[in-house]
Amino acid sequence: MTIATATGLDHFEFWPENSFWSFQFLRMMGKIPAGGGDFSEMILALRGVAPGDGEAWYGAFAGLAHRLDQEAQRSLERGNPLSARDKLYRATNYHQAAGFFLADADPRHSACIEARRASFRSAAPLTEPAYTAVEIPYEDGARLPGYLFPAASVRDSGARQPAAVIFGGTDAVAEEMYFFLGKALAERGVHTLAIDGPGQGEALRRGIAGRYDWEVPAAAAYDFLARLESVDPRRIAVVGQSLGGYLSARAAAFEPRFAACVIWGAIYDLPHVLGVELAGTPAGEHFTTLWRKILRMEPEADLMAALAPYNLHGVAEKIACPTLLMHGESDRITPFAEAEKTFADLTVEDRTFLRYPAWTSGCTHCQVDAALIAADDICDWLCDRLAVAG
Amino acid sequence: MTIATATGLDHFEFWPENSFWSFQFLRMMGKIPAGGGDFSEMILALRGVAPGDGEAWYGAFAGLAHRLDQEAQRSLERGNPLSARDKLYRATNYHQAAGFFLADADPRHSACIEARRASFRSAAPLTEPAYTAVEIPYEDGARLPGYLFPAASVRDSGARQPAAVIFGGTDAVAEEMYFFLGKALAERGVHTLAIDGPGQGEALRRGIAGRYDWEVPAAAAYDFLARLESVDPRRIAVVGQSLGGYLSARAAAFEPRFAACVIWGAIYDLPHVLGVELAGTPAGEHFTTLWRKILRMEPEADLMAALAPYNLHGVAEKIACPTLLMHGESDRITPFAEAEKTFADLTVEDRTFLRYPAWTSGCTHCQVDAALIAADDICDWLCDRLAVAG
Repeated sequence: MTIATATGLDHFEFWPENSFWSFQFLRMMGKIPAGGGDFSEMILALRGVAPGDGEAWYGAFAGLAHRLDQEAQRSLERGNPLSARDKLYRATNYHQAAGFFLADADPRHSACIEARRASFRSAAPLTEPAYTAVEIPYEDGARLPGYLFPAASVRDSGARQPAAVIFGGTDAVAEEMYFFLGKALAERGVHTLAIDGPGQGEALRRGIAGRYDWEVPAAAAYDFLARLESVDPRRIAVVGQSLGGYLSARAAAFEPRFAACVIWGAIYDLPHVLGVELAGTPAGEHFTTLWRKILRMEPEADLMAALAPYNLHGVAEKIACPTLLMHGESDRITPFAEAEKTFADLTVEDRTFLRYPAWTSGCTHCQVDAALIAADDICDWLCDRLAVAG
Repeated sequence: MTIATATGLDHFEFWPENSFWSFQFLRMMGKIPAGGGDFSEMILALRGVAPGDGEAWYGAFAGLAHRLDQEAQRSLERGNPLSARDKLYRATNYHQAAGFFLADADPRHSACIEARRASFRSAAPLTEPAYTAVEIPYEDGARLPGYLFPAASVRDSGARQPAAVIFGGTDAVAEEMYFFLGKALAERGVHTLAIDGPGQGEALRRGIAGRYDWEVPAAAAYDFLARLESVDPRRIAVVGQSLGGYLSARAAAFEPRFAACVIWGAIYDLPHVLGVELAGTPAGEHFTTLWRKILRMEPEADLMAALAPYNLHGVAEKIACPTLLMHGESDRITPFAEAEKTFADLTVEDRTFLRYPAWTSGCTHCQVDAALIAADDICDWLCDRLAVAG
């Protein structure tokens, strides 16, 4: 096997003929260091899978996930909670992968979501310290689902510890944020809340539509954290990955209580990214379908018009808290120019641009290929701003 | 990229044209879940490496390792101990990989060994709980180097905790045993000692030659553990991987104080494996060169004659403690028949044969492709025998 270096390629692609599928492959590999996958298990599962064959992909990951759920149950019955936990972590992400390419109307899609949530919840009491499923009060009595990953140790001198809220991207779910970043932050003594915001994951399933003015759900998350006895309300950061890069910037610009902002993959202008950069690509098709659902649009409605407010024109400049922006040069989903535009508009003095060069770890979209490395980078920057020795 | 399924292949090989190099690739990938490597970092480093090109392999991993050492130093200076630890863990294994295919006389070979040990020692105080470099009293004033990974939590009701000693294979080193198993055992409340025994790793560099009667160094390891106030001398297990599968069986057969024995990859008859099964292969050449060095042989001396005592004829039947044997069906270094012969000779009632079928995780030599899965299996079995709830 040689690693493809075809003309035009500037990063590792498992299937150079299908960039979007290769990205999903890396998204799985990036979670291994946090226990969210196993290289051998995944590479063997993918043995009969050709890129683009969603049925084969589903079969590979669903089979693995269900087997691990059963094995975890047996481990528990035999009195081996840590092995059960390890299996449930992997089952969580394999269930997520299994459902990824299924049509929304496919009943297996819902089954994958429910199985993913069940696996991750089953692992909660087996994790030290245990995390908890939470429901964040939102508008009109609705609640946003998520998880609180408590700080694993106290690493500062304050009576209350710092905290962070993490928002994922368009097709991300709160569960995977544990493997991408939550575990690393908790280890550093930062209480971490990962939630499915409006239009995301389980919130979308509850009928809670997406919105561009993310300061509203972000404030709900802030309020939830600030009310916890263990949390220092002056040290709460907002972190967003992928679409979350837009969301966290928007939140920090209009919710001044956040002490720091991490833009983990920038989106300066979503209609431009989706309507121009991704036009005609498998990724573009995937996200277009998803956005119509997120915004609960009628079939004939104009998606680009609905997405128009999703941009940082006049927004990024309002951010007053320390801000970290990270972007990979080989990002094939949100071009590097989005990061440059976003950073150019930042006015806060304490701003940092972490650029991951082509052909290096982290060069892909949101550093999913090297989540451990990105998590270390985020934690280093955040711990400094939140005054914690992590 | 398709995953090779050439005729005769019964497991994933990164380079199907070179089984031994593919094995070293998997040996790296298997350490990712314990933090001993990063998929993206390694796959990108290997971009220009053709199987068999030892110089390119050295350059890829040495470059990575030295960069990580420097980055770890900067992380420490900036007050980020956990990121420094993560980088040092990976540097440890990348230094090991860098030196793997170098000739012994190459000065870079020694440099890789020293760098590996330095990286791993630097990570010790950054690990919770900190591990310590130890020196085990051996014969004639010599000492065997290793590490004590203390139990991360007390998970049983005893005043003293159980313990295990791990021996690696012919070309293994104590440092990598942390990533393969030590970390997992420590998390389960088992104090774990990983040492370079006679003829292994740093002990060999000190001029301590190999020996077949492994009960001698194993007793030294047992004595060291039994003297620790935190260790219950009635609950000390011996674990051996690869050649260690022979070593742990031999130790358990003639050192009755061990409470349990794990044969992590069996070798029933080493001269048969090396002289017949591996004859004419890259692996055979590698191990033949290494064994002449391990036994400190003159160039004209007969290696097979010197290796003759390395077999379990009349030995395995003497093991009186509970014994676990694990072997992959697709093992290309020690054939599956070695495991069958070993297991057939066991007479102890509490004996378990864990067989990893072809094309499943763990099917390769010593499950290096799926170390997390193997570690969970070992821990489940051991915790039961050592009466700890892990």
